[in-house]
Amino acid sequence: MALMITCAPARLAAWKEALGPLLPGVPLRAYPQEVADPAEIRWAVVWNHPLGDLRRYPNLELVASMGAGVDHIFRDPDLPPGVPIMRLVDRLLTTAMSEYVLLAVLRHHRQDAGYRAQQAARLWRELPAPDTEATRIGILGLGVLGTDAAAKLAALKFPVAGWSRRAKSLPGIESFAGEAGLAPFLARTDILVCLLPLTPATRGIVNARTLGALPRGAYVINAARGGHVVDADLLAALESGQISGATLDVFNQEPLPPDSPYWSHPRVVMTPHTASITVPRSVAPQIAENIGRLARGQPLINLVDSAAGY
Amino acid sequence: MALMITCAPARLAAWKEALGPLLPGVPLRAYPQEVADPAEIRWAVVWNHPLGDLRRYPNLELVASMGAGVDHIFRDPDLPPGVPIMRLVDRLLTTAMSEYVLLAVLRHHRQDAGYRAQQAARLWRELPAPDTEATRIGILGLGVLGTDAAAKLAALKFPVAGWSRRAKSLPGIESFAGEAGLAPFLARTDILVCLLPLTPATRGIVNARTLGALPRGAYVINAARGGHVVDADLLAALESGQISGATLDVFNQEPLPPDSPYWSHPRVVMTPHTASITVPRSVAPQIAENIGRLARGQPLINLVDSAAGY
Repeated sequence: MALMITCAPARLAAWKEALGPLLPGVPLRAYPQEVADPAEIRWAVVWNHPLGDLRRYPNLELVASMGAGVDHIFRDPDLPPGVPIMRLVDRLLTTAMSEYVLLAVLRHHRQDAGYRAQQAARLWRELPAPDTEATRIGILGLGVLGTDAAAKLAALKFPVAGWSRRAKSLPGIESFAGEAGLAPFLARTDILVCLLPLTPATRGIVNARTLGALPRGAYVINAARGGHVVDADLLAALESGQISGATLDVFNQEPLPPDSPYWSHPRVVMTPHTASITVPRSVAPQIAENIGRLARGQPLINLVDSAAGY
Repeated sequence: MALMITCAPARLAAWKEALGPLLPGVPLRAYPQEVADPAEIRWAVVWNHPLGDLRRYPNLELVASMGAGVDHIFRDPDLPPGVPIMRLVDRLLTTAMSEYVLLAVLRHHRQDAGYRAQQAARLWRELPAPDTEATRIGILGLGVLGTDAAAKLAALKFPVAGWSRRAKSLPGIESFAGEAGLAPFLARTDILVCLLPLTPATRGIVNARTLGALPRGAYVINAARGGHVVDADLLAALESGQISGATLDVFNQEPLPPDSPYWSHPRVVMTPHTASITVPRSVAPQIAENIGRLARGQPLINLVDSAAGY
C-alpha cells in the first residue's frame, strides 16, 4: 500500500516531510514519476490531477484535495465511483483567507488608491472620511471561510450579510439564501466578497445580471475561483462605473495570460492565487487521521458531498 | 454664557450642527471671529488653539479636545490653572484607528508592495507565504485605541504585546511596562505600532536606540503623533535596512513639507493625518454631557490628568 502525491514539483519535498512522519512505513509516491504499480496506491493527495487518471488505481480508498476547494477533482467526469473525497479544513488556510479579504476590504474602504496617488503627487489633502457602519459587506458563501471572514468583518463594525444555498444562523450576520435571496442580498451590498465553492450551480455567478443588481459603484472581491466570474461582464461593469473596482486572486485561466486586461486595469488589484496557500505541515494530520479511520472502519472527517460538488 | 469653537473653517458648520441641538439657547462662537466678549465664554472645544490664549477667558470652566489626543492643549505653557481638560473617547474614532492599523499591518504582512510590483510587471509568481502566528506585533500605548487595535490583531492570530507606563492585564495580550520593559518588548516585536499619547515622556520615543532594539527588518507604523518619531533616526534605519518599511499618518511638521524625504521614499506609505477623523455628531454628546455635569456639580467624564499630560 502506498500514498500518491500530485502537486507542483517545488512543493513535493514539503508534502513528503509533512506526511512521512505521520504514516510510518507507507511509501509516498510522487505522481507520475514515482508511481510504477497502480495497484499499490491506496490514498491520493492531489492538486489538479489529470482528468480521467484516478480510475486507474483499483485499490484507491481516499482522494484528498490539497486545498479547501475540490472543484479541481469534481471537474473530472470519470472519477472512480464510491471513493470518498475529502477537502482540507485548516486554521492556517482560514486565517490567511480572512487576512486577504480584510486587506482588500480595508484598502478599498480607506480610499487607499486615492491616498497612494496623493503621496505620489506630494499632495496633503484629506479625502472624505469613510463611514464603516454604512458600508455593507456581502459575502457569497458562508462555509468555513465565509463564516470566518464574516465574523472578523462584523467585529470591525461593518454591517455584514451572507448568501448561501441554505439559510445560516450566525450571530450578527444577516443571512440570505437560495435563488430568491440573491437579488435582495445584492441590493444591500456595497462590497461583494466571493468565497463560494465552484460547482455547476455557482459557475459564472458574478455576471452582468448580478453585478447590475448591486448598488452603483459597488466593489468586488473574488478569492474563490476564477470560474465564478464572467470576465467580460466584470470588465464591462468596471468600464461603465457600475463596479468601482475589484480585487482578484483567481482567474478563469491561471497563470493569468499576459494579454489579460486585468494586469493593467487601473481599478483592479490582483494577486497570483496566493490568498490562502496550503501549509503541508499544518494539514497533514487530518489526511493521516482519515487514513487511520479507514483502517479502523470509522467515519471519515471533512468529506465532501459528491452530489453537491462541495 | 457661550461655547467657543476653535477648528478649521471647513469643519465649523459640522461642529455647530452637532452641538447646537444638544445645547439649546447656548451661543456657539467660532474662534476668533465670533468671540467679542471673553467673559461670556464658559466652555471651549478646541483643536490647535493659539498658545497662551485660553487664559483670556475669566469664566472658562471646561476645555474639550476635538480628538483623542490632548498634546495640542498641553503644549501651551500658560494654560488657565484649575480648568478641567477633557478628551474624546468615541466608538467611531476607535473603529477608524483600528482599521488604519489593520490595513497597514496586513499590507506589510501580505507582501503587498511585492505583489503590486509584480502586477505592474505582469509577473505571475507566488511569494513566500507569510506566517501569521510567527509575526509578532508590538503596540506602544495600551489606552483606548491601543487596546482596541491589540484585540483586533490578536483575533487575527497575530501574537500581540503592548507596552505602557503601567502594566495592563488584557486577555491574550502580553504586557510590558515602564522603562525596564521597553527593551524586551522591542526585542520581540516584528511590527511596531505607535498609539501613545504625546507627552514629554514619550516625545522622540521612536529613535535610533529603540529602532536598533527591534529585530533587523522590523516594520514601523505611527498613527499617534509625529513628535513620537525622530525623523533622522527613522530615515537612517530605513536606509540601513534595520527597518524594512514604515506607514506614517502623522509628522513633526504638518502638512508634511514638500521637501520631506517621506513623500517619495519607496518603503514609506503615508497618509495626511487621516487615520482617525473626529465626527462631530458622534462626539458632541459627551461634550454636552460634561457641560450638564458642571451645571449639576457632578464629576466629569473623559478628563485627562494634567500632571501626566494625557
